[in-house]
Amino acid sequence: MNPVANNSRSWQPDDTDREDLLRELRRCLAADSVLSDPEALAPYECDGLSVYRRLPLAVVLPETVEQVQAIMRLCARLKVPVVARGAGTGLSGGALPLADGVLLSLAKFTRVLEINPLERWARVEPGVRNIVISESVAEHGLYYAPDPSSQIACSIGGNVAENSGGVHCLKYGLTVHNILALGIITAEGEYLRIGGLAPNNPGYDLLALFTGSEGMLGIIVDVTVKLLPKPEYAQVLLAGFPSLGAAGTAVGRIIAEGIIPAGLEMMDNAATRAAEDFIHAGYPVDAAAILLCELDGVEAEVTAQTDKVRGILEGCGADHLQTAIDEAERMRLWAGRKAAFPAVGRISPDYYCMDGTIPRRHLAVVLEKISRLAEEYSLPVVNVFHAGDGNLHPLILFDANREGELAQAEALGGQILEVCVEMGGTITGEHGVGIEKLNQMCVQFPEPELRQFHAVKAAFDADGLLNPGKAVPTLHRCAEFGAMHIHHGKLPFPELERF
Amino acid sequence: MNPVANNSRSWQPDDTDREDLLRELRRCLAADSVLSDPEALAPYECDGLSVYRRLPLAVVLPETVEQVQAIMRLCARLKVPVVARGAGTGLSGGALPLADGVLLSLAKFTRVLEINPLERWARVEPGVRNIVISESVAEHGLYYAPDPSSQIACSIGGNVAENSGGVHCLKYGLTVHNILALGIITAEGEYLRIGGLAPNNPGYDLLALFTGSEGMLGIIVDVTVKLLPKPEYAQVLLAGFPSLGAAGTAVGRIIAEGIIPAGLEMMDNAATRAAEDFIHAGYPVDAAAILLCELDGVEAEVTAQTDKVRGILEGCGADHLQTAIDEAERMRLWAGRKAAFPAVGRISPDYYCMDGTIPRRHLAVVLEKISRLAEEYSLPVVNVFHAGDGNLHPLILFDANREGELAQAEALGGQILEVCVEMGGTITGEHGVGIEKLNQMCVQFPEPELRQFHAVKAAFDADGLLNPGKAVPTLHRCAEFGAMHIHHGKLPFPELERF
Repeated sequence: MNPVANNSRSWQPDDTDREDLLRELRRCLAADSVLSDPEALAPYECDGLSVYRRLPLAVVLPETVEQVQAIMRLCARLKVPVVARGAGTGLSGGALPLADGVLLSLAKFTRVLEINPLERWARVEPGVRNIVISESVAEHGLYYAPDPSSQIACSIGGNVAENSGGVHCLKYGLTVHNILALGIITAEGEYLRIGGLAPNNPGYDLLALFTGSEGMLGIIVDVTVKLLPKPEYAQVLLAGFPSLGAAGTAVGRIIAEGIIPAGLEMMDNAATRAAEDFIHAGYPVDAAAILLCELDGVEAEVTAQTDKVRGILEGCGADHLQTAIDEAERMRLWAGRKAAFPAVGRISPDYYCMDGTIPRRHLAVVLEKISRLAEEYSLPVVNVFHAGDGNLHPLILFDANREGELAQAEALGGQILEVCVEMGGTITGEHGVGIEKLNQMCVQFPEPELRQFHAVKAAFDADGLLNPGKAVPTLHRCAEFGAMHIHHGKLPFPELERF
Repeated sequence: MNPVANNSRSWQPDDTDREDLLRELRRCLAADSVLSDPEALAPYECDGLSVYRRLPLAVVLPETVEQVQAIMRLCARLKVPVVARGAGTGLSGGALPLADGVLLSLAKFTRVLEINPLERWARVEPGVRNIVISESVAEHGLYYAPDPSSQIACSIGGNVAENSGGVHCLKYGLTVHNILALGIITAEGEYLRIGGLAPNNPGYDLLALFTGSEGMLGIIVDVTVKLLPKPEYAQVLLAGFPSLGAAGTAVGRIIAEGIIPAGLEMMDNAATRAAEDFIHAGYPVDAAAILLCELDGVEAEVTAQTDKVRGILEGCGADHLQTAIDEAERMRLWAGRKAAFPAVGRISPDYYCMDGTIPRRHLAVVLEKISRLAEEYSLPVVNVFHAGDGNLHPLILFDANREGELAQAEALGGQILEVCVEMGGTITGEHGVGIEKLNQMCVQFPEPELRQFHAVKAAFDADGLLNPGKAVPTLHRCAEFGAMHIHHGKLPFPELERF
């Protein structure tokens, strides 16, 4: 029933096994591309969810597809678990190493392989940074639409693994809507080509299945992305509201009008102040909430929509209303939002970024519930989110140096995600499950669905060697968690020793 | 390696087994919902691909989810293959029965279960006809976007199974982009809920995997579809061109401008004449090709885009150019296109509708190649297609009563699909593989991908009981086909006795 947990146990190496593995890895690739010295391993001990840390047995840095195949064949033969890693910016611990496993970094796969401006696609290696794709095709008036906050640093391979979003995914979709094909190395070291350039492909939709699969089904070695023509014209409106509820109502009204903004972002007062102090974007720091609404397209359309949106914002009680007068102001207004996370980092020793979704119309109710939970736990929560999508990013502020505060932050985070599920939403909008939300997966999914997930995993990776212990909890874990959950009446924080 | 072919052989019933099965089926549902009389079975012997016909052992017409579960549990126990059938309008033989199998019709699942106009979704049973969804939500100013030509007759369950498109999918996407969740009964009779109301769901994307899976992974018992607000304004332009090449160039130029028409359809002279004779839409019957371009959205935007498109069409040499003056004219212009298939049916005893995709920019070259192949086979080909998507629908005209013409038509069809693959396209845009294109799947996919398809199938249906022999060819078949293919230098027509 659970090939992952069972099979990953079959590799229980002693020192000789470890030495043998390192020696064999060094046969697959250059000596300096196999790291095993603790100091050299240290940068790989965690990803963006840095509360979880662990050194792998080895880090490998292949440069060619053939080397990836050789590594995978070796690990399949010895039953060594493999964790793939892109830029390591993930926020759910998906790239956390396994103590006796191999961490396979795609950091050297940084080539843009082919650009076809006429058919509007580019084929790139997985280590290419998100922003580099748009930079590489800018001369053709094209760009790659999904723009996670980390787009300067995160890699396209990681974007595919997590099905990343960004502020513009309301209109332009998630990663899955913006890729055409993938090159994959399977757990056995075979090259699989999935997807294609046509709008629809026969056979099962392995491309969608793979996207967001968090490194559990194969190693991505190339990605063909769709490119879009840069919108002729873009305009951004900034509105300040006297209450979160009023801002939430405005979001619903804009969408109800049939307008699909390129971005529709909300920040509460604490987030607005933090961003303003950091970036000086010109935000109204007394507003209970601000909305940023970007409209793009042909100029006549954008102008017509801007008028309409302005009317809605006024009608919903906006007491600050501003339309960017030029591109410089538009960029400045966005800069505040894009720097909101680091801005919050400046006002608190630590913060824990949550990522849940809810049906849009419940925005006000959920924010109210979060605020009550925050009081209960005595931890401030700052809210920044993709309002148009109903994708919340509550940031829980805490100080890891204070005894018990991390655990409290995690417990509060778990409760917030449960509220999302209760309201018909999900436990992750774009950050993935990783190691972080395994328990919440038990809340989100009943047993038949979890069993089906494990069966699909086994269809790609029968020995359970790819990123074991992530993304989909074992049924055993859920049974245990369910019992604990019912017993205590609230979510326990993930126990570090359990994964 | 191929559980489908192996396991489907384990049910080799004699007359007693057949009687036992019928008796057990009649325990699962009302006696008049289990058909076994040849006369009663006759309407189910084929779907829209009527050159393939076969009577099943029994047709069952369950009315409740529990009955579907009971049927599936029974068939799983006895290892009886099950073919699901919606409205039977499919064009690739996906609902063709198996002689000793059960045909499970969803014809009685016709309820609209829930409409949520605020969150813009509807949950419906699989037998609900496509058009009925839009009719049911029209009072809220909403509609369901994908509109296959058969939308008056085809059912939403079948649309999901085939990932159906339609003239508006250029802008609004295929079925997979317009559904949120599915209720599934597995091969073992278990209820699975996949997808959800949120924009992104954790776990593997089973919703996308299921969409277009042609009845191979489970039985759909409910579908939650997205609803869209009816566009405020729509306009259609009709252009006649002196050559197919000029019309193709216009298509490329419109898309290159960053305009996404709601529909962008092309018909060649023969299709135009046939449609005009039938519907009197006002098409220019002397044009070598006509283009229909629909633009929708807010009025200011549509007006601006209409001007732009008109300029492009003129610039590409359109010698007939017409913009619908009112809604009645817009509907009339579309009526010709929507009736193009039956219109062709009036001018030929039989026609064979192909469905391939190609990169848009190769339109002119591919049409030229098709025209040369048509000459070679001495069979007329009429072209109607979703030009914006590069989704071709060549209609091969033939007379089944003339010795060998069906075989010739199938051989020509196979060659046309090979041209599509050669040009970087696919063997199906929206009609599915079914029984029709199994050989062409061998051309489209190399062995590792086919093996992965079979592994995914086995993760849902280990005994291979769901629609065996469809959609994904066995490796054995491909090996045989490859050998034949190389030997003769061109595609043999699908042999009827092989499936």
